[in-house]
Amino acid sequence: MNDRVYFSKWYLKGIRENPSTTGPFVKKFFNLDYRMYLRFLNWVPAALKMPESELIDHAGLDSTVYLRIYLLGLKIFVPIALLAFAVLLPINYTDRNFEILITNAKDITFSPIDKFSISNVPSGSKRLFVHIFMAYVFTFWTCYCLYKEYKIVTDMRLHFLATENRRPDQFTVIVRNIPPDTDESVSEYVEHFFRVNHPDNYLLHQVVYNANKLAKIVNQKKDLRNRLIYYTNKYERRPIKRPTTKAGFWGLWGKKIDAIDYYTKEIEKLSEQEVAERERVIGDPKAVVPAAFVSFKSRWGAAVCAQTQQTRNPTHWITDWAPEPRDVYWDNLSMPFIELNIRRSLMAGAFIGLTFFFMIPIAFVQTLANIESIEKVVPFLKPLIDTGPMKSIIQGFLPGIVLKIFLLVLPMILMEMSKIEGYFTISTLESRAAGKYHLFLLVNVFLGSVITGTALQQIQVFLEKSPSEIPKIASLAIPMKATFFITYIMVDGWAGIAAEILRVAPLIIFHLKNIFLVKTEKDRDEATDQGSLLWATFEPRMQLYFLLGLVYSTVTPLLLPFVIVFFAFAYLVFRHQVINVYDQKYESAASYWPDVHRRILIGLVMSQILLLGLLSTKAALHSTPFMLVLPVLTFLFHQYCKSRFESAFRKYPLQDAMIKDTLENAREPHLNLSAYLRGAYIHPVFKGIEVDTSMDVYEDDNPLVATKRKSHKGSSGELTDILVV
Amino acid sequence: MNDRVYFSKWYLKGIRENPSTTGPFVKKFFNLDYRMYLRFLNWVPAALKMPESELIDHAGLDSTVYLRIYLLGLKIFVPIALLAFAVLLPINYTDRNFEILITNAKDITFSPIDKFSISNVPSGSKRLFVHIFMAYVFTFWTCYCLYKEYKIVTDMRLHFLATENRRPDQFTVIVRNIPPDTDESVSEYVEHFFRVNHPDNYLLHQVVYNANKLAKIVNQKKDLRNRLIYYTNKYERRPIKRPTTKAGFWGLWGKKIDAIDYYTKEIEKLSEQEVAERERVIGDPKAVVPAAFVSFKSRWGAAVCAQTQQTRNPTHWITDWAPEPRDVYWDNLSMPFIELNIRRSLMAGAFIGLTFFFMIPIAFVQTLANIESIEKVVPFLKPLIDTGPMKSIIQGFLPGIVLKIFLLVLPMILMEMSKIEGYFTISTLESRAAGKYHLFLLVNVFLGSVITGTALQQIQVFLEKSPSEIPKIASLAIPMKATFFITYIMVDGWAGIAAEILRVAPLIIFHLKNIFLVKTEKDRDEATDQGSLLWATFEPRMQLYFLLGLVYSTVTPLLLPFVIVFFAFAYLVFRHQVINVYDQKYESAASYWPDVHRRILIGLVMSQILLLGLLSTKAALHSTPFMLVLPVLTFLFHQYCKSRFESAFRKYPLQDAMIKDTLENAREPHLNLSAYLRGAYIHPVFKGIEVDTSMDVYEDDNPLVATKRKSHKGSSGELTDILVV
Repeated sequence: MNDRVYFSKWYLKGIRENPSTTGPFVKKFFNLDYRMYLRFLNWVPAALKMPESELIDHAGLDSTVYLRIYLLGLKIFVPIALLAFAVLLPINYTDRNFEILITNAKDITFSPIDKFSISNVPSGSKRLFVHIFMAYVFTFWTCYCLYKEYKIVTDMRLHFLATENRRPDQFTVIVRNIPPDTDESVSEYVEHFFRVNHPDNYLLHQVVYNANKLAKIVNQKKDLRNRLIYYTNKYERRPIKRPTTKAGFWGLWGKKIDAIDYYTKEIEKLSEQEVAERERVIGDPKAVVPAAFVSFKSRWGAAVCAQTQQTRNPTHWITDWAPEPRDVYWDNLSMPFIELNIRRSLMAGAFIGLTFFFMIPIAFVQTLANIESIEKVVPFLKPLIDTGPMKSIIQGFLPGIVLKIFLLVLPMILMEMSKIEGYFTISTLESRAAGKYHLFLLVNVFLGSVITGTALQQIQVFLEKSPSEIPKIASLAIPMKATFFITYIMVDGWAGIAAEILRVAPLIIFHLKNIFLVKTEKDRDEATDQGSLLWATFEPRMQLYFLLGLVYSTVTPLLLPFVIVFFAFAYLVFRHQVINVYDQKYESAASYWPDVHRRILIGLVMSQILLLGLLSTKAALHSTPFMLVLPVLTFLFHQYCKSRFESAFRKYPLQDAMIKDTLENAREPHLNLSAYLRGAYIHPVFKGIEVDTSMDVYEDDNPLVATKRKSHKGSSGELTDILVV
Repeated sequence: MNDRVYFSKWYLKGIRENPSTTGPFVKKFFNLDYRMYLRFLNWVPAALKMPESELIDHAGLDSTVYLRIYLLGLKIFVPIALLAFAVLLPINYTDRNFEILITNAKDITFSPIDKFSISNVPSGSKRLFVHIFMAYVFTFWTCYCLYKEYKIVTDMRLHFLATENRRPDQFTVIVRNIPPDTDESVSEYVEHFFRVNHPDNYLLHQVVYNANKLAKIVNQKKDLRNRLIYYTNKYERRPIKRPTTKAGFWGLWGKKIDAIDYYTKEIEKLSEQEVAERERVIGDPKAVVPAAFVSFKSRWGAAVCAQTQQTRNPTHWITDWAPEPRDVYWDNLSMPFIELNIRRSLMAGAFIGLTFFFMIPIAFVQTLANIESIEKVVPFLKPLIDTGPMKSIIQGFLPGIVLKIFLLVLPMILMEMSKIEGYFTISTLESRAAGKYHLFLLVNVFLGSVITGTALQQIQVFLEKSPSEIPKIASLAIPMKATFFITYIMVDGWAGIAAEILRVAPLIIFHLKNIFLVKTEKDRDEATDQGSLLWATFEPRMQLYFLLGLVYSTVTPLLLPFVIVFFAFAYLVFRHQVINVYDQKYESAASYWPDVHRRILIGLVMSQILLLGLLSTKAALHSTPFMLVLPVLTFLFHQYCKSRFESAFRKYPLQDAMIKDTLENAREPHLNLSAYLRGAYIHPVFKGIEVDTSMDVYEDDNPLVATKRKSHKGSSGELTDILVV
């Protein structure tokens, strides 16, 4: 039965058959087939078997490239770890800073890990030059891996775009901020504008309706229908007594009424409202937002329109490459330019506030969560806590768990903030949310854990100390925090991935739905939530491990194996999930890669600056110029990669468009493109439920430009005929 | 006679007649017409008479908008000065910080100006809130002026572009970094590429020859010809003895020879070399650089090509809007992408070095140039120096003059650095040099004068002090430096403009040329150097006055009248120069405005930060949040202006291109565009001297693609015929 949760993708594709359909009734609730369990344990080799090209076909490029980030982590950190273990560990261990310190002052404590860290090298030691040299080697290796990976991903993306099938977004451009016109409706205005300014390329357009209210009604109806199904099922199982509910809010109070009758009636009421609202939206010109999807006769025409500026005022007629239809976030399509600017400024302010005020509770709880204060609060646990291993576990785990709880709530808040910012594709929303989350983790988890421990008010530190002081303060704490981050990797990283493979939440939800709502096989299919890669959450978290690995590679190399195990384990698990479970909601062809690349480089630069600070506290001041070169080189590397690769993720080159156009013309010379594109960008509430609505929407704005439209249709038809001949 | 120097532009246009041609011989050297001198004094009202629209026709948009920057200075500072005098002066003057200080410590000195400055308000005074309020008012007023001006300039630019006559650059795109191809020559490859990827728009292309060596020979020849003319003139005036020269280097040593014969022979030799080199360049495929000017059938086609990416590799086939033919800097057209990156990084490093090492001599000379050390070196001047007014003049002038000498050499160095960076238009070179010069002035003149006085090593200050300390240090010195900056404005600003109107250097050069080289009227025309607005020097200097005005508007408002007089005087003088003297070398349609706007805003933000620092030293710490809001608001304003206006200076909207195309098609349906565009982008050494060469160049690459070219010509001719009909 759980098969549907752990291999949901195959059901979606219709490849995997339902194992319970053939068995007796008991099997519906308890899977008696022991082979299933065996197979479940066998997922590791199975996950690795599928070759990459097949994986792209099966799960899309986004997921495939996402897995490559974990692989990249392995590629970067395995050689670094080998080198660090071979060179740095012996150097650190054979030095004797701690011995000196202990003879000087007896009250210094250090964990066994510290013996292997840079802390064991005394100030002013010549050995520190080995660390500088290794920092260079690690930087060059990381940059080399990043460069190669950027190149590979760029090629994969370009190949993917070149070979993918005909899709509406290849021909379509989204136009926003259409200025209001007193004489013409939005639809007419769009048509005239593009007929004049792209005379040889314009094909058709689709206006966007503000159907937010309608979508709300449809959702309400769906909810009520679920309740109705629940009560119908209940009645069918125990047909003695008709189920009742209460008329008040959420069925919690009010007088008792017959549930089935009540919900049937409510659904009918909503259906009427839905029809009325739908008619209003289609009929009312005010329901049309000043945005449209404009389709062209060729990919070349769309590429040209998307990359050029249309009018003098750059805030009007903004054209962008259209997202996939399922990637559109419809609610945000109608925002005017000025409002967008204001919203973004406000959200930037709100995010800064969130980032810095979140620190107060974290710091507060973390100062509570040390051994001494626990012993004070619960003195009877003292003998238990004081035993060696227990002590270090608590010391390590507690702050991690405190953080973890905070961080679980956060991505949703950040996603809502991104929605307020007004981006109109789900992929952009996710990448914006990921950016915020990454910044948050950087400031609050990494810097927060490093600096808060030494000085409570981080902001004040940044303002009051000189720029050369800050890395010193942070870097002094870095070696001491190694134990904390090792346990953090185990708690957050390892355990998080274990939870990921178990899919606890989807499992529970599926079984609840299965018991209460499922009647037919179709229902069961719908009850299965495949889920998708939570890019905006997973990627920034992973970046934290890149950062930790890079920072500790020269300071405490003992941390590296934990990072490596994380990447390896995560790669396995996510490969399984991507193959068997997740169903991506959209395909952006790995357009997020520049972000990934940039964030790893941010981690690299941070590691260099922290090492610089650490070395300057080690009185190796003459090493500063050597260390200052590294961030500059890294920045130049970033600039080079940006100019070399980034445009492949932002623009569609004309040559590629032309090649695809020519091939398609040769293969299908009589393709009716307008029939293919018509209705591709219809608000989802108009789709599905009543299939003919989508056609209505298009036909419906015809009468407004009826005479023109007809003559144009003829001429454009003739034109294409001529071109084809 | 001097008329040609002071009204050179009119001679160039052929409107003004030569006053000396009708008079007797004496008049050639001494202008006896007293009316000329009167007219010369009358230039002030004459300069103001010409309306702006006429000015644009007469002198171009670049110069007209340049004058508007001075006007903008007046618009910003006159109201600010009025307000500051009405509100801040009484408030400062009626307070009594200096009285308190003097009663406490007798050895404090202050100039009368300080009584009017913020220094006279004691720490912690409630009066400081008036200064904060005024900082808000000044910021809003400045931003309002800047916004209005940006809007006006944008409209002027768009109007100018929309109404300007047909120009080759409207139809042309410059393509750089054409990848090497084993089968085809550059010319063939370009033609194939654009025929395939812009099939409906491509018209013709012109390859670029690496004619740097040829240009050198042509220049040498020109130099020798001047010498020949000089000796011929000498001989004609004194026909008794043939002039002689020496055969060695620069005619300085070697045996005596007949000068006219020698130079005639040398010129012949060079002419032969020139012909040979010209043939080599045209014939040798290796002399073709991987760049080309590609012209399209319509402005729409060129706008599309310039704004889109052509191939997958963004470092190949880079397309940009073609500059005006006379704006092209030919030497830099052949640089490969990687080399450009390296050159720019190196130059960035060199510029940082230059900026900071220049400081050492400045600081050294400035410490020397105080009263005490002068009195030590020249003790006999002591009684003269010690008299009151003399003392303050020397104290003020000396550091200014020291700076001035340094700054005169600098723009040329910066221009050379920009050339090394590899930009290929003169306008970009100038704007890059201006950017560097601005940064230099900011660091060395402004911050250097402010901070060096208190602490010698500025870099160290920046590194060692905390970010909140730096503005404090700088701002402590700000009120004290008011006298210095007032004298600096007089020495650098006022005197500089007076020198500008006198045109001393061009006057001397003209007369030297006139005596030695001029024989015919044509020669005299050539001897007149109209000169042009030295944008890269003038604009950053002007920005310094914006900065000073903004910084001192709240601190020492007494400085404002000096700034205002500078702007008014400069406006008058440059309006006269632009109308009567300068002849711009190119027309960029005010494309520099975003830089001007940004730099004024940089000055505004600096003034806000310095005031913030000053207030925090005044123990008005609770005012910090009020002052922190201002830079944030200013930055948001900048972002808004950028998104709203900047694209008008970077891109050419398709709608505008389409309108111009349509109008032209209607007006001149049978225009032969390829004849018009052919030869428009020929290296200047192929032009002029032998007129038929330009045609040769184009014909010459015909045989390479002969068969194709012929058939294409026919078909494209037919195609345009069809389109026109």
